[in-house]
Amino acid sequence: MNTYVSDAVIRRLPRYRRYLLKLKKQGITRISSKELGEIMDVTASQIRQDLNHFGGFGQQGYGYSVEDLIERLEDIMGINKSYKVGVIGCGRLGQSMINYLKQDPSYKIVALCDNRPDMIGTEIDGIKVDDKATFQKKMKTDFDILILTLPAANIEGLEEDLKDSKIKGIWNFSMTEIDVKGIHTSNVHLFDSLYSLSYYINHPE
Amino acid sequence: MNTYVSDAVIRRLPRYRRYLLKLKKQGITRISSKELGEIMDVTASQIRQDLNHFGGFGQQGYGYSVEDLIERLEDIMGINKSYKVGVIGCGRLGQSMINYLKQDPSYKIVALCDNRPDMIGTEIDGIKVDDKATFQKKMKTDFDILILTLPAANIEGLEEDLKDSKIKGIWNFSMTEIDVKGIHTSNVHLFDSLYSLSYYINHPE
Repeated sequence: MNTYVSDAVIRRLPRYRRYLLKLKKQGITRISSKELGEIMDVTASQIRQDLNHFGGFGQQGYGYSVEDLIERLEDIMGINKSYKVGVIGCGRLGQSMINYLKQDPSYKIVALCDNRPDMIGTEIDGIKVDDKATFQKKMKTDFDILILTLPAANIEGLEEDLKDSKIKGIWNFSMTEIDVKGIHTSNVHLFDSLYSLSYYINHPE
Repeated sequence: MNTYVSDAVIRRLPRYRRYLLKLKKQGITRISSKELGEIMDVTASQIRQDLNHFGGFGQQGYGYSVEDLIERLEDIMGINKSYKVGVIGCGRLGQSMINYLKQDPSYKIVALCDNRPDMIGTEIDGIKVDDKATFQKKMKTDFDILILTLPAANIEGLEEDLKDSKIKGIWNFSMTEIDVKGIHTSNVHLFDSLYSLSYYINHPE
């Protein structure tokens, strides 16, 4: 499909997949948009609208095949492919993301960078921590995704380096905006989920 | 307001606030739902509907006061209050969340727990890491929010302890489901944003 799909839809796709994986684990093979909507707390019509952007693959009256839908969602998002990943910032957050990423073998970390002299040259999970100059060279050819787990203050000059790189996407924990044509940035706002939690603490059922 | 508000709306509130804070920083004092919708890539009608759940506070033809709306959103979510926080799991992820939380002084970490003998008794940012028994006692009286940054495998027995605790909300990074009546759990799914990023990498504009 070549139609424009809004970012809100794209951000909902992983959530659909998560719920479907849970259903699959429970041995459920088929589900209607109504049932799925009830579990996910969205309307059946939203589910149908969202999936119709990609061709729509439920059968009228039969619902969705759980397994097929998972596969289609993975195809659409491209999360069954392989990605090479570089990480700038190997502090606590960087190291925990290196660790976290092990859960999905599609994303393979191939390069690390830090500016602290005591980190440069050390290894994390068998990958050497590069200095800036070495990492800059690798950005041109070695990986597709860049994870930013460094403080916003240290980001200077990065946009310039990115223009000249092979990087197609940035998973950005740095709380600063990166704007480079042709590179999509996914900003992670961890506080959002803490703030919605606070709402519920203040509005008990 | 006592009307039921869906989780999808609650999860959008922090995002509204983020965009409004950015506008405020730019010196913008007033904005229409149409303009805000354009910046945020949602419809004006969704913004009006979402905010109407809480009384609706735009003036017809004048839009929203940026500053007022920020304050109202903070009131609604309760993020201008003070929360005491405990953390179970002081590994890489736990330590990075302890660090991350410093950005918002409303959330104060008061207790830490880990099961590794070499961690117990050490201090992180001046707070002692407790063993399980000590932390269990603190759960009854000392804090409102629990952060779970431990592997799912180590969660055994936790639900039982929670029933008997003062805890009102859980910020859950453990990739497992916690289900205790009266305690809201906000599950953090970091992979979601990486998977939407992958979509964009595979569908360049």
